[in-house]
Amino acid sequence: MYAPLLAHLRKFILLSEADEKVLLSYLNYQSLKKKDHILTEGNICTANHFIMKGCFRMYNNTDEGTEQIVQFAIDNWWITDYNSLDLQKPSIFNIQAVENSEIAFIKKDVQEELFAKLPQLERYFRIILQRAFAASIMRIQYIFNQSGEERYRHFNSAFPDFIQRVPQYMLASYLGFTPEFLSKIRAKKE
Amino acid sequence: MYAPLLAHLRKFILLSEADEKVLLSYLNYQSLKKKDHILTEGNICTANHFIMKGCFRMYNNTDEGTEQIVQFAIDNWWITDYNSLDLQKPSIFNIQAVENSEIAFIKKDVQEELFAKLPQLERYFRIILQRAFAASIMRIQYIFNQSGEERYRHFNSAFPDFIQRVPQYMLASYLGFTPEFLSKIRAKKE
Repeated sequence: MYAPLLAHLRKFILLSEADEKVLLSYLNYQSLKKKDHILTEGNICTANHFIMKGCFRMYNNTDEGTEQIVQFAIDNWWITDYNSLDLQKPSIFNIQAVENSEIAFIKKDVQEELFAKLPQLERYFRIILQRAFAASIMRIQYIFNQSGEERYRHFNSAFPDFIQRVPQYMLASYLGFTPEFLSKIRAKKE
Repeated sequence: MYAPLLAHLRKFILLSEADEKVLLSYLNYQSLKKKDHILTEGNICTANHFIMKGCFRMYNNTDEGTEQIVQFAIDNWWITDYNSLDLQKPSIFNIQAVENSEIAFIKKDVQEELFAKLPQLERYFRIILQRAFAASIMRIQYIFNQSGEERYRHFNSAFPDFIQRVPQYMLASYLGFTPEFLSKIRAKKE
């Protein structure tokens, strides 16, 4: 059931059979339907979620009544609100399944115990967080340096499969412009 | 000489005297004058840098001939280009001292050896990267949801000391607008 997570971990760290057994005893499984939430704003985030299959978006509701997407995550990515998880304070974000999805999650209240038993996990998360942070710095750079159209073209060529999986209005929100602007760019291309 | 770094580490992990000795043997010290660079674009980033005293900015040169600041770092923060450091490919960024500064740095080519000797460092970096990543997600949220003026006011109230340390044109670049726009906002306030 947790094969995709174990495969991903093995790319970064060594886990003995005994280690895997320990890990499995701390994992939880959840199957979600499209549009199900694993976090809603105002609540405290209680777990870190690994996507074994599917797609999620993290967004906040704006003062203007729209939804601003700050993050997407697909197969083999983790998603959580680290601010809320770390400090155990209410989140300003929502995390919702964009497709029917399957996740493994580690609850906050056992995370430290698990890390103490399997310190290799510190290394695993150090490496994936390093990449996530590097990607977010690049994203900030793109937001500031590229026009909306350049951002779309770049995203399109970097993640062609991903573009097929999410509705256009979500992609527009993630890239920071209106669905109308995205339609205009796409029309120009064809 | 490395007291600020040791103090910071002790907030997150346990280090025995023997551990500290090991760590010290892997650290390098550098004193920098204002405007000195520790990374220039086109070069491969070779170290992760802990700021013991001072202030740095990470920026890229834009097609329009301006400098776009993507990150600031002050005392007790780490700064590097993780994309370049991790993949050992040329950086698109520059990292420059904004003040006379003192840093401790760990070279990429000994990092793995050091982490193998002191696995607690995996935990330390996991925790600080988690916070850095969470902060960058919040920053993206602010960029999309707040007006330039709101962003300035928020930054001003969150980091009042910091505002005093960096020139106005750098702050404007970091917040994503022109120095003229920043002057206008500040004039309104006074």
